[in-house]
Amino acid sequence: MNFELSEEQNAFAQTARDFAQAEFAPHAARWDAEAIFPKEAIAKAGELGFCGLYAPERIGGLGLPRLDSALVFEEMAAVDPSTTAFITIHNMATWMLGTWATDAVAQQWGEDLTSGRKLASYCLTEPGAGSDAGSLKTRAELQGAEYVINGGKAFISGAGSTDVLVLMARTGGGGAGGISAFAVPADAPGVSYGKKEHKMGWNSQPTRTINFDNVRVPAENLLGKEGEGFRIAMKGLDGGRINIATCSVGAAQGALDAARRYLHERQQFGKPIASFQALQFKLADMATELVAARQMVRLAASKLDAGHADASTYCAMAKRFATDAGFNVCNDALQLHGGYGYLSEFPLERLVRDTRVHQILEGTNEIMRVIVARKLLEGDSDIR
Amino acid sequence: MNFELSEEQNAFAQTARDFAQAEFAPHAARWDAEAIFPKEAIAKAGELGFCGLYAPERIGGLGLPRLDSALVFEEMAAVDPSTTAFITIHNMATWMLGTWATDAVAQQWGEDLTSGRKLASYCLTEPGAGSDAGSLKTRAELQGAEYVINGGKAFISGAGSTDVLVLMARTGGGGAGGISAFAVPADAPGVSYGKKEHKMGWNSQPTRTINFDNVRVPAENLLGKEGEGFRIAMKGLDGGRINIATCSVGAAQGALDAARRYLHERQQFGKPIASFQALQFKLADMATELVAARQMVRLAASKLDAGHADASTYCAMAKRFATDAGFNVCNDALQLHGGYGYLSEFPLERLVRDTRVHQILEGTNEIMRVIVARKLLEGDSDIR
Amino acid sequence: MNFELSEEQNAFAQTARDFAQAEFAPHAARWDAEAIFPKEAIAKAGELGFCGLYAPERIGGLGLPRLDSALVFEEMAAVDPSTTAFITIHNMATWMLGTWATDAVAQQWGEDLTSGRKLASYCLTEPGAGSDAGSLKTRAELQGAEYVINGGKAFISGAGSTDVLVLMARTGGGGAGGISAFAVPADAPGVSYGKKEHKMGWNSQPTRTINFDNVRVPAENLLGKEGEGFRIAMKGLDGGRINIATCSVGAAQGALDAARRYLHERQQFGKPIASFQALQFKLADMATELVAARQMVRLAASKLDAGHADASTYCAMAKRFATDAGFNVCNDALQLHGGYGYLSEFPLERLVRDTRVHQILEGTNEIMRVIVARKLLEGDSDIR
Amino acid sequence: MNFELSEEQNAFAQTARDFAQAEFAPHAARWDAEAIFPKEAIAKAGELGFCGLYAPERIGGLGLPRLDSALVFEEMAAVDPSTTAFITIHNMATWMLGTWATDAVAQQWGEDLTSGRKLASYCLTEPGAGSDAGSLKTRAELQGAEYVINGGKAFISGAGSTDVLVLMARTGGGGAGGISAFAVPADAPGVSYGKKEHKMGWNSQPTRTINFDNVRVPAENLLGKEGEGFRIAMKGLDGGRINIATCSVGAAQGALDAARRYLHERQQFGKPIASFQALQFKLADMATELVAARQMVRLAASKLDAGHADASTYCAMAKRFATDAGFNVCNDALQLHGGYGYLSEFPLERLVRDTRVHQILEGTNEIMRVIVARKLLEGDSDIR
Repeated sequence: MNFELSEEQNAFAQTARDFAQAEFAPHAARWDAEAIFPKEAIAKAGELGFCGLYAPERIGGLGLPRLDSALVFEEMAAVDPSTTAFITIHNMATWMLGTWATDAVAQQWGEDLTSGRKLASYCLTEPGAGSDAGSLKTRAELQGAEYVINGGKAFISGAGSTDVLVLMARTGGGGAGGISAFAVPADAPGVSYGKKEHKMGWNSQPTRTINFDNVRVPAENLLGKEGEGFRIAMKGLDGGRINIATCSVGAAQGALDAARRYLHERQQFGKPIASFQALQFKLADMATELVAARQMVRLAASKLDAGHADASTYCAMAKRFATDAGFNVCNDALQLHGGYGYLSEFPLERLVRDTRVHQILEGTNEIMRVIVARKLLEGDSDIR
Repeated sequence: MNFELSEEQNAFAQTARDFAQAEFAPHAARWDAEAIFPKEAIAKAGELGFCGLYAPERIGGLGLPRLDSALVFEEMAAVDPSTTAFITIHNMATWMLGTWATDAVAQQWGEDLTSGRKLASYCLTEPGAGSDAGSLKTRAELQGAEYVINGGKAFISGAGSTDVLVLMARTGGGGAGGISAFAVPADAPGVSYGKKEHKMGWNSQPTRTINFDNVRVPAENLLGKEGEGFRIAMKGLDGGRINIATCSVGAAQGALDAARRYLHERQQFGKPIASFQALQFKLADMATELVAARQMVRLAASKLDAGHADASTYCAMAKRFATDAGFNVCNDALQLHGGYGYLSEFPLERLVRDTRVHQILEGTNEIMRVIVARKLLEGDSDIR
Repeated sequence: MNFELSEEQNAFAQTARDFAQAEFAPHAARWDAEAIFPKEAIAKAGELGFCGLYAPERIGGLGLPRLDSALVFEEMAAVDPSTTAFITIHNMATWMLGTWATDAVAQQWGEDLTSGRKLASYCLTEPGAGSDAGSLKTRAELQGAEYVINGGKAFISGAGSTDVLVLMARTGGGGAGGISAFAVPADAPGVSYGKKEHKMGWNSQPTRTINFDNVRVPAENLLGKEGEGFRIAMKGLDGGRINIATCSVGAAQGALDAARRYLHERQQFGKPIASFQALQFKLADMATELVAARQMVRLAASKLDAGHADASTYCAMAKRFATDAGFNVCNDALQLHGGYGYLSEFPLERLVRDTRVHQILEGTNEIMRVIVARKLLEGDSDIR
Repeated sequence: MNFELSEEQNAFAQTARDFAQAEFAPHAARWDAEAIFPKEAIAKAGELGFCGLYAPERIGGLGLPRLDSALVFEEMAAVDPSTTAFITIHNMATWMLGTWATDAVAQQWGEDLTSGRKLASYCLTEPGAGSDAGSLKTRAELQGAEYVINGGKAFISGAGSTDVLVLMARTGGGGAGGISAFAVPADAPGVSYGKKEHKMGWNSQPTRTINFDNVRVPAENLLGKEGEGFRIAMKGLDGGRINIATCSVGAAQGALDAARRYLHERQQFGKPIASFQALQFKLADMATELVAARQMVRLAASKLDAGHADASTYCAMAKRFATDAGFNVCNDALQLHGGYGYLSEFPLERLVRDTRVHQILEGTNEIMRVIVARKLLEGDSDIR
């Protein structure tokens, strides 16, 4: 066992930290307030390889382990979890396309995606199929050399501003086994987008419904084989859960660091509030929870990298634990700032709003418990 | 002991419920999104007596017990905690003016305030004196028949849109004993307002700093006597804490009711999510916590109404407990709504943002613990 | 509404407090350590009426409201929750017998029970029917003028040392509707008792299984009518849940008072540990939680006294909330005592062990959530 | 980074698991019930090297990393945390002696201790110096070639049944800098022992006060140099905190495994209770918390092994987190067993009682927060 980052890993993290300070920090509050999707900043992240961190090299990705990718995402999320979370979703969709697309499709989109010049959305959830993703209704019918797609998706990150949709649709019968995955051009005829949703946070990435009305894509746009779509989607999500958990860890570190500084600066009753024991204890608990969350994420990432049989379970544990811890740490940091924590002038309330959705998406934390419990009760696993 | 509301109390609550449905429900989301201060709706509340519920009758108040007032506030807060919270602050300031103002000043402002035609702000907090309110620096110097006021206040609800400021300023030496209270016209020469703060919530009431630059008010605008200001401010806050705790209870009830409905409507895995036991347990805990919070508020209100020696301690307990419970219940209700809870289309995310500040203001929940612990460790009290 | 105790109620509570100090306090630790069932002390409680507090007057009970009874139980439980809990169970069984027994049976047992000269056990749970009480298998067959009982019960408080068993047995078909209640002499031929269970706490009351092997009781020993047994058992439990919740509140008050004293006495780092803010905050939260728990119990008791339609739901809420709070407060008080809290020399560890079972029995806290959720989701109730 | 155990480490753990099953499992309940100190079983552990796992090789220790030692302790604690915790304390004291004793003293005691033929106690705490260990009053005066020791210690594990005392006593002025460490024969003239304490748990190891009345030890029994005693004691405790945290993790794993089995076995409402979603969710949260606790312990152990500058902080975090998690998981597992969890027949209630003291000793969890907060607020550390 070895819990230390290598020099190379530390260098990666430092690069990401510097990038986030330079390109995200000055703008994150405004992107939130004005709901700006910062495509230029994302493209700059792409120049550093951050848009294809674990995507395969055949499409220009860095092919890094999930653990190394998480180091990068964490540093960016400490400054702007909303923008970073979109980049992680783009990474996930790009990895899916890079892993399962035909050569032609991989060549068509790959380098544009890994470089961040074009962006991808992950399209699984439907209005009536959230936690029960396997029941999705969007259909893709093979007609000659094309699939014809009809149906609708909801809560799609980036929708309306991205270039390619990694879409799960039903090609066969009911249940998970009837689902296939596709790469669909975001501007294909018949694709239309709903209004931009008003949300509590994640304002720097647009969320919209998407409607598919007789949308035609070449048969080669199928990812993997027919019927593999749900499995592919879930493989994507294993990583997606690590990513979103990482965004929570990063945001919490940003919030904790802000609180550490504020406790020294703020004076009440004639001394810095850092001298009040009850606040010290709160800070200690926040830091402890955060360190535990980070370890859970890294453990899960290493299991996924190693292809461990229980990797999905560790990913579910990490997602549940770290997104709860992340929200709580941000929320506690807000409280330590008193009234100032409630103002947009400080980053705390934004971090709280942004991390709140991490407990819901990529599988709600309730679904994470279902996944973990199922494995525990099967009895053939040795989760440690 | 008797835990049942009287018929009259139930009628009061019903009136408030109907009012809130008619006047707040259709607009609350928009007031939040567009940061509109709904003065007309507040004035309509005033027509029903809701702007001077416990203010003394000599200024046109209803002179109701705090417990009865809480019933009204709770119902309105179930729909719009932000607007309701402002109304409670106005009630508090109006009660202070009505209780301690000279006849002339009471006559000048009283009926306009209790009717809601004019509005009042409570001005205690300063940028450097939040939890340590007794260290405030704003000064009021008696010069002939006038006080001349210099200094600044922060986090003032309604500031810039209200008509009278109930202001705590220093007339004597350091500490709480050197503070006096005043009624100050909001448009007096020398009063200037900062920019409208951007906040996480409470968007239907403007928050601003106020600057006082040689502001002159007649000596008769003093509330009570010189040196009584801190005591008056704290008396106001005892009620203010019940009020804000009530707003949390109301908001939580609104959120719980929404969740009850949603669990029946939303289908996943082929059945209403109401049939999932883990969600049922969550709902049960939310309701239980909420009932406990309501009881704490009513207990504190009854202690305050009875002039109980430990009333302030009960108010602090109720404020701590109910604002924590309120936020948690709203936040849990958001989670039960899944992704839809994160959208502004549903009221949940607004209720979460609005109740978050209740844990901070009118004395942070940390200060509530200081108050409770001090009394417990004095040993001469029998808190039960 | 009125949250104050009457003079008479305060006097009742004071009598109980004095009694507990005189008769329980000097012995409680020893009763626990040596697993002594203090029948003499219980009989002394009976002399004050505490063995039939809410039992009907026809059997010599005081016929008090549940709320008044709770005041007495709470004071005794502050000193010895285990012994007090047994007394509450005896009260429950005595009330059931007093309410539903035929005159003959009521006359035979009533005054001995209400006076505490004889003791009763409540026999519902079976090894295979705990939370699912309605599936119990013990059978009572009417043969001529007698019922013949066969089966077994588990976890019976007092078993082997009590005089009458209030027994739920199946006289009809499956489910709750086939169950009837009986008064069975504890020494009837065919009744046999298992070994005394070794438990974490509740050591001053013996717990045993009971076996019924062709036990014959006169038909007049039926309580109520055939098929009413489950309803009668549940009516008993509504009160039983208030009682056990009250024992938790009392124990927590005892623990909190011990902690208040200890914080002043114990010196570390040159000053009383009462001066450490983090410990003060803990104490404040304990007291707040305790006050909320007490209010929940009193609210439920008043609902039960008033025959409110939702009384069972309020009882379930109170039981869940107060037994969790009670255990947590005792456990926190143990922690505040440091190493000394872990020693039997101090009462804390005993209070923790004794209150632990309150979260399990009279319906586990999981079953309480089932009850509350069911009512909330029926939608026809207005729990407030 | 690498989160996988090596084959060798897995083999170690397996050996410990087998040993605990063979030597502890059949007896642990009885050792607890009858307060038996199982010296023979401990000696058998010694035969496997478990009494000097990280002690230096010069005294016959295995010189293993803390991380490897933790693997062994964890497996034993899953069966009997009380006995295992004593073994960890013995390991700590043996390591201290092995590291800082003169050659003569090391030779005198070393191999007897690492082999488990003789046992050691760690003597720091005094009745008036618990959390404030630096204020201890026991004095050691150098008189010629001997130190003469006077004073008293409290809460000493193993006291009265061990052979050597690793004692911290004051040789110089006030504060931590005036303290020295000694190896004291447990039967030296003038050493006397108080009565065996009655405790909530940890019954398989005796706890007593020790009195020192003009106890004379050769000057060479000094460990390290004069004035280094507090530093040595704290170095010992860094490892001690990992050890005790490990015992919590182990106990929790034992409890979780018991709960997994029980959920399948126990039937209610016509099906295994494993099928109830709310219980599944509880199990998932227990497992997740446990995995996080284990990671925290391993992270801290690796930091200590690496001599990391913040190792003490990581040890404090791990101790706080894992002992809280350990108690909570055991306590939740008890609840999942319903009434059976409260009986000594099942191991749950013993695990709860045993793990409870882990939150208190080796520095209370409150002191852990002090340590963590101090480091966080110094600002020169980068805890991750």
